[in-house]
Amino acid sequence: MATLVFFSVRESAQATTRRCFRGLAKAGHSQSSVPATHSPVVALLPGVRWFSRGTAARLVPHGTSGGSAAGRGGGGGGALALSGAAVVAAAAAVAGFMANAGHFQRAEMASRVSPAEEDEPDGDIAKRCKAFMSPPVTDVNVLQGRKEEMSTRMEMLIMETQAEFCKALEEVDGGTFKVDRWQRKEGGGGISCVMQDGKVFEKAGVNVSVVFGNLTEEAAKQMRSRGKVLKGKDGKLPFCAMGVSSVIHPKNPHIPTVHFNYRYFEIEEADGSKQWWFGGGTDLTPVYIDKEDAFHFHNTLKEACDKHHPQYYPDFKKWCDRYFYVRHRGETRGIGGIFFDDLDSPSQEEAFRFVTSCARTVVPCYLPIVHKHLDHRFTDEEKHWQQVRRGRYVEFNLVYDRGVKFGLATPGSRIESILMSLPLTARWEYMHEPAKGTREAEMLEVLRNPKEWV
Amino acid sequence: MATLVFFSVRESAQATTRRCFRGLAKAGHSQSSVPATHSPVVALLPGVRWFSRGTAARLVPHGTSGGSAAGRGGGGGGALALSGAAVVAAAAAVAGFMANAGHFQRAEMASRVSPAEEDEPDGDIAKRCKAFMSPPVTDVNVLQGRKEEMSTRMEMLIMETQAEFCKALEEVDGGTFKVDRWQRKEGGGGISCVMQDGKVFEKAGVNVSVVFGNLTEEAAKQMRSRGKVLKGKDGKLPFCAMGVSSVIHPKNPHIPTVHFNYRYFEIEEADGSKQWWFGGGTDLTPVYIDKEDAFHFHNTLKEACDKHHPQYYPDFKKWCDRYFYVRHRGETRGIGGIFFDDLDSPSQEEAFRFVTSCARTVVPCYLPIVHKHLDHRFTDEEKHWQQVRRGRYVEFNLVYDRGVKFGLATPGSRIESILMSLPLTARWEYMHEPAKGTREAEMLEVLRNPKEWV
Repeated sequence: MATLVFFSVRESAQATTRRCFRGLAKAGHSQSSVPATHSPVVALLPGVRWFSRGTAARLVPHGTSGGSAAGRGGGGGGALALSGAAVVAAAAAVAGFMANAGHFQRAEMASRVSPAEEDEPDGDIAKRCKAFMSPPVTDVNVLQGRKEEMSTRMEMLIMETQAEFCKALEEVDGGTFKVDRWQRKEGGGGISCVMQDGKVFEKAGVNVSVVFGNLTEEAAKQMRSRGKVLKGKDGKLPFCAMGVSSVIHPKNPHIPTVHFNYRYFEIEEADGSKQWWFGGGTDLTPVYIDKEDAFHFHNTLKEACDKHHPQYYPDFKKWCDRYFYVRHRGETRGIGGIFFDDLDSPSQEEAFRFVTSCARTVVPCYLPIVHKHLDHRFTDEEKHWQQVRRGRYVEFNLVYDRGVKFGLATPGSRIESILMSLPLTARWEYMHEPAKGTREAEMLEVLRNPKEWV
Repeated sequence: MATLVFFSVRESAQATTRRCFRGLAKAGHSQSSVPATHSPVVALLPGVRWFSRGTAARLVPHGTSGGSAAGRGGGGGGALALSGAAVVAAAAAVAGFMANAGHFQRAEMASRVSPAEEDEPDGDIAKRCKAFMSPPVTDVNVLQGRKEEMSTRMEMLIMETQAEFCKALEEVDGGTFKVDRWQRKEGGGGISCVMQDGKVFEKAGVNVSVVFGNLTEEAAKQMRSRGKVLKGKDGKLPFCAMGVSSVIHPKNPHIPTVHFNYRYFEIEEADGSKQWWFGGGTDLTPVYIDKEDAFHFHNTLKEACDKHHPQYYPDFKKWCDRYFYVRHRGETRGIGGIFFDDLDSPSQEEAFRFVTSCARTVVPCYLPIVHKHLDHRFTDEEKHWQQVRRGRYVEFNLVYDRGVKFGLATPGSRIESILMSLPLTARWEYMHEPAKGTREAEMLEVLRNPKEWV
């Protein structure tokens, strides 16, 4: 969850004060910042807003691998034509909705804690900001003045995602998030929302950060997982990075931990050209396996992915299992979800739409599961197993997580925001191994052999 | 504590089955494996055995930087002549003892849980092995057959250290250690002793490992902190590595956590020459600062060091503060102690004597502190602060500790032995900062600004 806190690595001390640079490449950039597949669904299906956001506008029927056949991966990727998506969205939404009546019940439950969203996509910037947990990192007037730029659209998206998720969690918990605005000396800052020791949630953190400044060529290279070489002016590369990230640790061992992170980067090279890319993912870490939850979670993600490319879900599902692998234990952190990085195709506009779909899938992925288990009673033994699993969560986050590692290695980073991903409590027992045939052993078996859930 | 579990890194798959190679360089190697400074003191001062072991045979009066002026560091190091030490040991012991009457009381307390040690140094191998927690890793007959070799003497020392410490802890706790013998497929194995959820100790782990095989040149280079280039036969370097390591987490927040590790390495180059070195250290992590404890702990270490070189304590104390630094928190893990690595001077014999002194200082450093606070009552708030500090302990161990990092990165390593250093329970609170003027703030102040305790 700390992916965005590491940007002062080898960054020039002369941080630029200008905001994310203007004139960014705008391939496929449309006038409106509203994903074309979004609004009509809301209008058609009041009361199932969260569900519809995640799964409604499918262009591909469930279970078939249709949609655009354009390839992806390696940063090349063919053009994925989504023009006209809005036109078919409403019909597709209804079809998708009817085919998932089981989920609907949970979605309906979830919708009881839904924030107002109708006016979200089309409202003016200042109005939309009023629904946030805090004013955005960037001044509202600045955002208003460059509202068509990707950096603005992404900052609005991450702020909205933070607000929507926090409000949904507050409603189910009854508690309130502590909101901290923080500034980064070198440029930018963030908004950390943390609820600790609530009624439902042991620790819930939802963090936004928007940082900018100059990177060295070496640091810029490290930032991209594919390690592209970038040429800077006098070795310096102006950059802008932003994202929303979250980890939610519930008290009840029957409610899984969830994590998500959606982020955007821009780097300007010496010749004025811009590199940009998106990254992100959502993944679930249950203490006990519940196949219905696993199906719901993965299927909701799959439907969001399938709207954009039929290979997204299978590829990003595998990437997720690979990324959240606790090598020294020979087990994954949880049951996965999706994970991707370096996404710069097929166009900035379509990549943003995909990330928007993902971000809007967080609540419909998770809240129905929370509601389902809210009154599920648990024993001391179940709580104990949860604590052991929390220990493994800490192991992954401190030993392997790239965001945490970079963040901790970076002098200027905000440690509290990086480490709010750690659970309130955790446990390590020597030689802990569940007895055969138990539900604990069943959970471990799944972690040792990741499954296809959809 | 996992320093010795990482030796299959890049090691040749054709692990040799022979034991630590014979004919090791024996500069200064004497017939007896008993440190010359040891036995007479025991005879003179029965009842203060632990204390005497740590502090008796000082050649340098407390507070002065006398002794040999031979330099150390960088692997060069002058010859530190300790011949004749035994002759003056008894008198020095008495002087040292009288000057430390305050400590004596604690040492006397500690001596109530002392294991039998009189017959330890001179007994034959088989007899000495009977006092161990388990038969040694190497077959007793093999040890007997090469009893003058450093690998044998060190294996006996680490087994003795394990047994002495475990028995002292069992006596104070009332519980018993679970003893696991494990084998390393590539060569060697270990003995892990763990007591969990005892009366006094939340988690106590004392691990011995003795491993051998072949290293690649690259892996051999990485093993030495000074990165010496070593030439292997066909790129392979037979090696042998062994050590004892321990972390003790007590339940009572007034009893500090202690950690120690003493280790020995041998690598054989293509021309038959051997590289060898020692490493180790002992450090304390209190939850609340107790200046008397801090003085006792550091002074006991200082006196053990001063017997060997006046620069050892100041240098190794600084090294310890540097090593156990949690950079992202800007604080040390605890109040330090000593830490050293790559020690290959002034001679193998003297380096071994120094390590022997250190290993024998573990019980007198720690047990008096345990006894002192055994019945010290504590509040929920104090327990809470302990749990927060335990979280920081986990952060250090998983993020920075070299042994843990290498161990976790190594496919063949025994994870349970590496991670037994983690506490049973830990806690992470968002933005936790003790109020000014509290004992918690006082502790933090010390961790942020390491002190001289002696």
